[in-house]
Amino acid sequence: MKFIKSFAFAVLVFGIISCSKPEKTSRDEPIKPVPISKIDNAQKVELGKMLFFEPRLSKSGFISCNSCHNLSTGGADNLPSSIGHGWQLGPINSPTVLNAKFNLAQFWDGRAKDLQDQAGGPIANPGEMASTHTLAIEILQSIPQYVDLFKSIYSVDKITIEEVTDAIAAFEETLTTPNSRFDQWLFGDENAITDVEKAGYALFKEKGCVACHNGVGVGGTSYQKFGVVKAYEKDTETLGRFDVTKNEQDKYFFKVPLLRNIELTAPYFHDASTVDLVEAVQVMAEYQLGQQLTQDEQNKIVAFLKTLTGDQPVITYPILPPSTAKTPPPDRN
Amino acid sequence: MKFIKSFAFAVLVFGIISCSKPEKTSRDEPIKPVPISKIDNAQKVELGKMLFFEPRLSKSGFISCNSCHNLSTGGADNLPSSIGHGWQLGPINSPTVLNAKFNLAQFWDGRAKDLQDQAGGPIANPGEMASTHTLAIEILQSIPQYVDLFKSIYSVDKITIEEVTDAIAAFEETLTTPNSRFDQWLFGDENAITDVEKAGYALFKEKGCVACHNGVGVGGTSYQKFGVVKAYEKDTETLGRFDVTKNEQDKYFFKVPLLRNIELTAPYFHDASTVDLVEAVQVMAEYQLGQQLTQDEQNKIVAFLKTLTGDQPVITYPILPPSTAKTPPPDRN
Repeated sequence: MKFIKSFAFAVLVFGIISCSKPEKTSRDEPIKPVPISKIDNAQKVELGKMLFFEPRLSKSGFISCNSCHNLSTGGADNLPSSIGHGWQLGPINSPTVLNAKFNLAQFWDGRAKDLQDQAGGPIANPGEMASTHTLAIEILQSIPQYVDLFKSIYSVDKITIEEVTDAIAAFEETLTTPNSRFDQWLFGDENAITDVEKAGYALFKEKGCVACHNGVGVGGTSYQKFGVVKAYEKDTETLGRFDVTKNEQDKYFFKVPLLRNIELTAPYFHDASTVDLVEAVQVMAEYQLGQQLTQDEQNKIVAFLKTLTGDQPVITYPILPPSTAKTPPPDRN
Repeated sequence: MKFIKSFAFAVLVFGIISCSKPEKTSRDEPIKPVPISKIDNAQKVELGKMLFFEPRLSKSGFISCNSCHNLSTGGADNLPSSIGHGWQLGPINSPTVLNAKFNLAQFWDGRAKDLQDQAGGPIANPGEMASTHTLAIEILQSIPQYVDLFKSIYSVDKITIEEVTDAIAAFEETLTTPNSRFDQWLFGDENAITDVEKAGYALFKEKGCVACHNGVGVGGTSYQKFGVVKAYEKDTETLGRFDVTKNEQDKYFFKVPLLRNIELTAPYFHDASTVDLVEAVQVMAEYQLGQQLTQDEQNKIVAFLKTLTGDQPVITYPILPPSTAKTPPPDRN
């Protein structure tokens, strides 16, 4: 009862703060504004939020989706690579979950076709949450409040991983960051960004950055080789898209990362090789475009990139239902 | 600017949902109702919330206060003992932060006199957050938004650990759980709890549980020996209050834990030796009171204990400011 009341309240709060606005028209630019998220099924989104923050989806009961895609810090963990079960260090920098719906596929190598497909991965990855789908379901099924929620939303008595990942994906669909200063400019507010920032955007287009970093997410629309015009020597072990396709020509191809909120999500690149956005821009110019930017050009582009920080999702921290005598206990080993 | 807007909004939301109600009178019972928290300095509380969720207070950049005192799960981590830096397992079950202000002192052994004194401990504990106060301050001082907030709230240019722990404590002071069904009954609503639950409360008093579990927190008002009438044999290594006082007679004395929200904070006891509340009640009766309760008595007492779950704090998840080029990087090793 108490729990249902909290839940209803949270749905209400979430609903109010996520209400949609009328569509606006924007400038004809290769970067498109982030639309306001519309929530079709608030109860499903709320369940997805609970699961996103649910440490019992991990073997240890300590790691949740939010551990590595922290919504306090740009939807990423700001670490070179994530810390997984037993303090294992991951092989690649954790991408942000913010605006992830605008990616053509998920993970750096695109091995998950969508958010739902992605959500099941880390739960069962021995280096990450180290659980199994069977165990995760057994835990949820042992908790009456979860059983009731899944029944109410999906009309099922037995929870499966399909509903779990569907709910997580429904929540993640809402994790967009509209209303950045750049988007305000796209919508016609000439004063939303400064002349320096406008000059940075002009350079971003002129130099060719926009060829890959375009669309709503300012990236996420294609796979590109890291090292187009010059071989990248810092990380030659991570093969990227090749791991999925096994095509030789896909070696070192990665999904182009989103640049939305980029100032919040250092370190940069799949190998987290820099925390400095100016250096990141310089590396991209050199390896992808074969250009040397002046310091002034770099600074202007970075000034532009910082206009891409949007309104961060306002999240009411979920209250999770307690385990029961039937709940498999956490295993920290 | 964006950050300041989010901050102002969060303060507003926090303010609205935490507004106080007029004082009510309650029944004359050894358990007192949890008062509604009054927030004197909303900006300080909001800063404290940011710091409570701030993973950069740990060496790794991965562990925050909330990692082990998770506000989604009753203010505790529901693990036998917490996971610290490098996946070290702690020596004792993590107590809930909810209503912790009602404890006579903090930690199981009372080694911190208050919430502020407590807050500095885990940051610098090599087995927990594994940072140092110097490093934590250096990190905060490198982030302009934090510098501005500390300046605004404390009128300081140089942050010290005093302000950090003061702000965390101010936030923790708000983490109370009023309006439990038991408190509704205390305030005169005869139907707020059932006859079985009332019978459980009567037993709780008759059997003597209330001798230690009393006051607002239903505990936290004294130190007691684990094993008053019968030596406790499961954990003989944790010496409790003795570690602080070095008095032989304080061996195996622990701060009596709060029973507020007890259904949310399994496993139970300092050694987390059971996840079953019925068993916990039986162990207490046997070792502390020298009694064997019938199954019916145990069930009634547990039914009463579950009426102590109050409204969980409604927390708007904080948005943390990004690191800068001057910020010492996280160290996962």
